[in-house]
Amino acid sequence: MINQDTIVALATPSGAGAIAVIRLSGDRAITIAEAQFKSVSGKLLSKQKTHTIHLGHITEGERTIDEVLVSVFKNPNSYTGEDVVEISCHGSSYIQQEIIQLFLRQGCRMATAGEFTLRAFLNAKLDLSQAEAVADLISSDNEASHQIAMQQMRGGFSSEIAKLREELLNFASLIELELDFAEEDVEFADRTQFKDLIERITFVLKRLIDSFAVGNVIKNGIPVAIVGEPNVGKSTLLNALLNEERAIVSEIAGTTRDTIEDEISIGGIGFRFIDTAGIRETKDVVESIGIKKTFEKIEQAQVVVYMSPLTPKGGINASTLLEIEKVKNKYPQKNLIVVINKIDILSEEAIVNLQSSILNSQSSIENILFISAKTGRGVVDFKNTLLDFVNTGALRNNDTIVTNSRHYDSLLKALEEVQKVKYGLDSGLSGDLLAIDIRQALYHFGEITGEITNDDLLGNIFANFCIGK
Amino acid sequence: MINQDTIVALATPSGAGAIAVIRLSGDRAITIAEAQFKSVSGKLLSKQKTHTIHLGHITEGERTIDEVLVSVFKNPNSYTGEDVVEISCHGSSYIQQEIIQLFLRQGCRMATAGEFTLRAFLNAKLDLSQAEAVADLISSDNEASHQIAMQQMRGGFSSEIAKLREELLNFASLIELELDFAEEDVEFADRTQFKDLIERITFVLKRLIDSFAVGNVIKNGIPVAIVGEPNVGKSTLLNALLNEERAIVSEIAGTTRDTIEDEISIGGIGFRFIDTAGIRETKDVVESIGIKKTFEKIEQAQVVVYMSPLTPKGGINASTLLEIEKVKNKYPQKNLIVVINKIDILSEEAIVNLQSSILNSQSSIENILFISAKTGRGVVDFKNTLLDFVNTGALRNNDTIVTNSRHYDSLLKALEEVQKVKYGLDSGLSGDLLAIDIRQALYHFGEITGEITNDDLLGNIFANFCIGK
Repeated sequence: MINQDTIVALATPSGAGAIAVIRLSGDRAITIAEAQFKSVSGKLLSKQKTHTIHLGHITEGERTIDEVLVSVFKNPNSYTGEDVVEISCHGSSYIQQEIIQLFLRQGCRMATAGEFTLRAFLNAKLDLSQAEAVADLISSDNEASHQIAMQQMRGGFSSEIAKLREELLNFASLIELELDFAEEDVEFADRTQFKDLIERITFVLKRLIDSFAVGNVIKNGIPVAIVGEPNVGKSTLLNALLNEERAIVSEIAGTTRDTIEDEISIGGIGFRFIDTAGIRETKDVVESIGIKKTFEKIEQAQVVVYMSPLTPKGGINASTLLEIEKVKNKYPQKNLIVVINKIDILSEEAIVNLQSSILNSQSSIENILFISAKTGRGVVDFKNTLLDFVNTGALRNNDTIVTNSRHYDSLLKALEEVQKVKYGLDSGLSGDLLAIDIRQALYHFGEITGEITNDDLLGNIFANFCIGK
Repeated sequence: MINQDTIVALATPSGAGAIAVIRLSGDRAITIAEAQFKSVSGKLLSKQKTHTIHLGHITEGERTIDEVLVSVFKNPNSYTGEDVVEISCHGSSYIQQEIIQLFLRQGCRMATAGEFTLRAFLNAKLDLSQAEAVADLISSDNEASHQIAMQQMRGGFSSEIAKLREELLNFASLIELELDFAEEDVEFADRTQFKDLIERITFVLKRLIDSFAVGNVIKNGIPVAIVGEPNVGKSTLLNALLNEERAIVSEIAGTTRDTIEDEISIGGIGFRFIDTAGIRETKDVVESIGIKKTFEKIEQAQVVVYMSPLTPKGGINASTLLEIEKVKNKYPQKNLIVVINKIDILSEEAIVNLQSSILNSQSSIENILFISAKTGRGVVDFKNTLLDFVNTGALRNNDTIVTNSRHYDSLLKALEEVQKVKYGLDSGLSGDLLAIDIRQALYHFGEITGEITNDDLLGNIFANFCIGK
């Protein structure tokens, strides 16, 4: 899959900035860079210690392309485990292109997506799940997903799996050893200890598999359906949420990030707000289609926010309460928050009275909030209520959380095989048949950490990386 | 204007990439970074040599923000001349923000635009025209503008100015000395040598001032007006030009640059193509407005391309030839190229015949090209013809070229003062009056290199930089 070419790529985001970094990796990285680099000190790059920085010019013949800083990393003490040179040049697109093209002419090859990290994996600098965490880390856009990616990159997840795999591998060897002595009817593998191990593995696998639900939600954002008429103040509310979180970062110019509409990070957790039409009874065909879509969106959501304005008299329509009941009955398992907007006209006292009258009524509403999206009143309460619905227990306990669907898939398969092993043990299955199931379980463990790989799998994983990583 | 705060900013382009670089500069840069950095080796940053790189984690209390490489540069051996720390982190916007915010909380201040380079100037690492060249270098998007910025950054321009300024300063001192001995009527400053110097200065200033016309065109692109009906194939031609230049870089993913529509770099020179409507006689009011605008655009252009398709019979309409004459007569000073497009149907021979018949006719057309924008036939000739119009003599001779309008302005003012000095010398003006004019000339020289500055001027120059440089 990989050859020993020296590869080159832009490592920093494309576009103009103060500086850009171009990265070379491979056997000839230092030689190739040295030939095009005139150091101010006059010293040769290849004579330099690892992890040192040198000022000079990138040149091609008589022509000077740029004044740069060159960092030298010698194998195995580099990201890829190979010789690596990083060139920090002025950040014009033109200069970036000129330098990369120069190195391509001098014998480098353009790196494919994720190839630096792939080489790090092949040189055993990272295991596969750590390598995957690098991509997650780069794409993380809130605290929770960042924390999980960091934990995974530092090996939390794979060390747990690797430890279980090793224990299981020990038993597998013992059982296979028994097969060699089949005629003597010896039992090298203690069946009680083995059952105990299988119990532990099952427990860990189930916990990891369960964590995927949390992990997935953290990685992709928690889906929140907002049900309400068009002019009820949904976008004002979203803007209020967005602004409050944004205020923290607003002083940092140049770090503006691309926001996906209605995806808002609250308290470090990503929420995906899904706008819907109302669900009022209607005979109009077009409107019915809208209502059908609303129900579909509610299906996908983990939290449903029912948003309604205060009536001009400062109360809530009976029909609104009926609709809320209908949503609640149709989706008893969904977390429901009722938000009454536009409360500017009400006093604190009036709100408390209104709230208790609703909670004490026939209605089964449990969460009702009174806000003014316009003035921001009550918005903090709304944020806290949303956060209460997030099962961040695992996150707070620093438990391992699975976010990668490839890992999830392998864990499910491993669990299936482990349960076959358990069944075999309970029913006194012969060692040779047990060994087959254990091997299968080991295989799926190995898929996660990368001890078992194939080119297709690697190609698939690293193709999702950006170039330059 | 500046205080000794330690400043921080993102130095790489914003957005997600494999890595990002965050830069700190100031007295406390190393101390602040050290407090948040857990080195893998366990060593303290402040104990490290300059120009070394260290692997570790950026942490805040118990929380690990990212695994990073930290580069240490000790004053005065850094870009700014102060202590500088560069943190190379994973390139997610989230991580970039978190690290910058962390350092802001720890006592750094957000750098203003160009502040790193401003500090480099104030610490005498660069003179003012070199500092300005840094911004030009970052925004250069073709070879010519890049080459000029590189030359300026390396001091070619300012060393020439500084040398003349020093000689002039010598004479100024001698003349002022004479004033102290006015009663004795001595002449310390040799008037013949002085006249000679003034001649040389005048010559250099005139050359530099003249180079601005070329420099400005190179920096901003050469304006080319394309005159022709909407379906004549203008955009096909522009695409053909663009694609041919692009093909070189197409294999470099991730370096796509933002193209301004119709700005194309040909042979390293930027051309700005200005699309116009035709100029056919008309009585339609709306159409006349279009034609008026066409003429306005031709006024701005340095080259005019008149584009017309072949007639179905494989010839050129007499009315087209008349129109071309009209343009030529109206703008005799403009470079005109006539381009006949859609020649797919013609043989090589037919084209040669057509060409000679036009050049031999009554028409005063000098440049006529036959192309097929669709197939690319003749496009290379078109490029070469465009390049022939560019006065790149100065560029090729590696002469100093002025591109900065601030420098141009100071050079003009300096020339004016120098001419006053010359007149004074010729008319035997007294030393004290001569001295005033010399001082004025010296002042304008100093403005270019930054020996004479004021806060407004500096603020103005560096405000045009990007943050992080």
